[in-house]
Amino acid sequence: MKNLTILGSTGSIGVSALKIVSSNPEKYKIVALSAGTNKDLLLHQIETFRPAAVAVLEESLATELKSRLPSGSAPEVLHGVEGFVRLATLKSVDTVISAMTGAAGLIPTYEAIKAGKDIALANKETMVMAGPLVMAEAKKRNVSILPIDSEHSAILQSLKGHIKEDLKRVILTASGGPFRDLSLDEMREVTATQALRHPNWSMGPKISIDSATMMNKGLEVIEAKWLFDLEMDQIDILIHPQSILHSMVEYKDGSFIGQMGIPDMTVPIAYALSYPRHMSNDLTPLALEKVGTLSFKRPDMKRFKCLGLALKAATKGGSMPAVLNGANEIAVDAFLKGTIGFLDIPDLIEKTMDSHTHSPVETIETVIAADRWARETARGWLNS
Amino acid sequence: MKNLTILGSTGSIGVSALKIVSSNPEKYKIVALSAGTNKDLLLHQIETFRPAAVAVLEESLATELKSRLPSGSAPEVLHGVEGFVRLATLKSVDTVISAMTGAAGLIPTYEAIKAGKDIALANKETMVMAGPLVMAEAKKRNVSILPIDSEHSAILQSLKGHIKEDLKRVILTASGGPFRDLSLDEMREVTATQALRHPNWSMGPKISIDSATMMNKGLEVIEAKWLFDLEMDQIDILIHPQSILHSMVEYKDGSFIGQMGIPDMTVPIAYALSYPRHMSNDLTPLALEKVGTLSFKRPDMKRFKCLGLALKAATKGGSMPAVLNGANEIAVDAFLKGTIGFLDIPDLIEKTMDSHTHSPVETIETVIAADRWARETARGWLNS
Repeated sequence: MKNLTILGSTGSIGVSALKIVSSNPEKYKIVALSAGTNKDLLLHQIETFRPAAVAVLEESLATELKSRLPSGSAPEVLHGVEGFVRLATLKSVDTVISAMTGAAGLIPTYEAIKAGKDIALANKETMVMAGPLVMAEAKKRNVSILPIDSEHSAILQSLKGHIKEDLKRVILTASGGPFRDLSLDEMREVTATQALRHPNWSMGPKISIDSATMMNKGLEVIEAKWLFDLEMDQIDILIHPQSILHSMVEYKDGSFIGQMGIPDMTVPIAYALSYPRHMSNDLTPLALEKVGTLSFKRPDMKRFKCLGLALKAATKGGSMPAVLNGANEIAVDAFLKGTIGFLDIPDLIEKTMDSHTHSPVETIETVIAADRWARETARGWLNS
Repeated sequence: MKNLTILGSTGSIGVSALKIVSSNPEKYKIVALSAGTNKDLLLHQIETFRPAAVAVLEESLATELKSRLPSGSAPEVLHGVEGFVRLATLKSVDTVISAMTGAAGLIPTYEAIKAGKDIALANKETMVMAGPLVMAEAKKRNVSILPIDSEHSAILQSLKGHIKEDLKRVILTASGGPFRDLSLDEMREVTATQALRHPNWSMGPKISIDSATMMNKGLEVIEAKWLFDLEMDQIDILIHPQSILHSMVEYKDGSFIGQMGIPDMTVPIAYALSYPRHMSNDLTPLALEKVGTLSFKRPDMKRFKCLGLALKAATKGGSMPAVLNGANEIAVDAFLKGTIGFLDIPDLIEKTMDSHTHSPVETIETVIAADRWARETARGWLNS
């Protein structure tokens, strides 16, 4: 029996993870759940999974939640970063599913690692912002960090049983998002509603916009770099519109090992929980003869400027990836609110990066400071 | 340093294996080489690799070879099955590359296993005819049998690091050969020259015809069954004309792990020799963005009757696969000589199988007897 905390239980990954727990009650037990603001769904989840503790972002929400919970068997209700950290470090917890959105996931995930918890990682910002610190801490505590991203899960599966020294490069595949065939002029006009409509994957709003700009792929490159200890020139990207081949590893002899499957997050979430086993599920399996063809091409860096910015930030290193990520969160939020256009997203990030002098990151505090600086700077540009 | 015997050194696999040895003199040493009738190439190989012993099929050829070898440093020259067995069981040999064509490979390979030699197996007939006996012997002697077929090498690479109990099925890919798009009427008229022109792979004549009839895929199914301990309903076939995805494994969770690469036998041969390592080579690596698309469809069992016959023989088991294989060798030989047409190949095999009462195979002698019976029966039909 594995005891789980889910950070971000009301999001797309959290909900899928809870379905897996429901289907495998003999394998997994929910100890704690956390949500940002979706109190109704959280209440429903509390009723179903009976966690010992829950946390939400705001104190007012925590108070409201307490008042709506039946007395007696109700869980402990916490709030804020301290609350999330508490859930992530509870003594009885074995694995923390880190599925909060954005930079907010960093501190609770890092504290979970420090407390010796295994991590099933959906929050790629943790790796983007603080990869070297996180990996060093995981190594020190002998903690597993298993990726929930379909791409990184594919790489993990393609590395298993082979020898790291034989690896030549990894190739992350990308659907190219809903705008992969638009011209720059057409992209200028797209709305948030169009950007939220991903052709293959059903995901939350932030990651859907990141997919449309291809920033998501850039963040994944940085995540892959740290997770699998790669040099930047060992990571390539191919556009693969069908999202069937989730990523692959090329070895020295020209052998490519790749993982394929239907585009459904249930599979990588379950693999991170049952690793190294493959657990049965009731999804309709992939039939390649029905898909018919898989196609591949190089990404167009001119139209997807965010991708280039992410690679640049990764190459600079230090505080720059945290700045990239912070500025991106501000830009995506502004785009979702209709304040800026689609092509303003990379411009805002670039301006923020250009005005940043990157420095080494030796502590989580430095990372948080760079993130805060980036947000303030980006907001400053927005309001100017 | 690995000491090697190559059975079938003048064939397509043998020549590629020797190139690998030449490129890696610090890793591999040739102890013995054998050929059927190609004495000129064998003489050249003797000069280059200085084996301790060689063997050819006929005594007269062995005598001629001896007379053409310089005295002093010349290798021991043997002949016939006994000669091949001798080379395969030499004390100093670690690994035998079993790359003879057809049923003739069975006895030397089996004797090599009995002598505790690891096997790099290209001769699939060994597995088709005597799979259960071969695997039992390999287990008893703690011997590795590593496949050289690109499909089986792909499966081996896709199984590594995963847990056998999680396997759902394996999917062998097939190019479909040069006639994959012909109608039955068009197939009736094809010549040996056309059949020898494989679209993707450069191979010897026997296996090229087997690819054109898709018997090769049927034999591979039987080989996979024994090599990976599978039930027949755990093995599927997909037509994949580009021959890039060499085969794959589907796990219980719907994850497909597959191996891709350019269609060049150097890669699986080298992997069988360097297993579990991937050895560098100077081949032009796969660029999926240049290939563009990979396509998949179900095979047409009506047009490729040999495939159905192989699956039937595998399901019957016992002596039937040896009969299938023996009759196929006679039929392919007759087709190559122009005696029968392309569609007569499956007909001759089917007639032979239909007149065979299959029995269990408990010894290699039973297998050899079934093979002999099939050849005589098929020849009888040809001459009637």
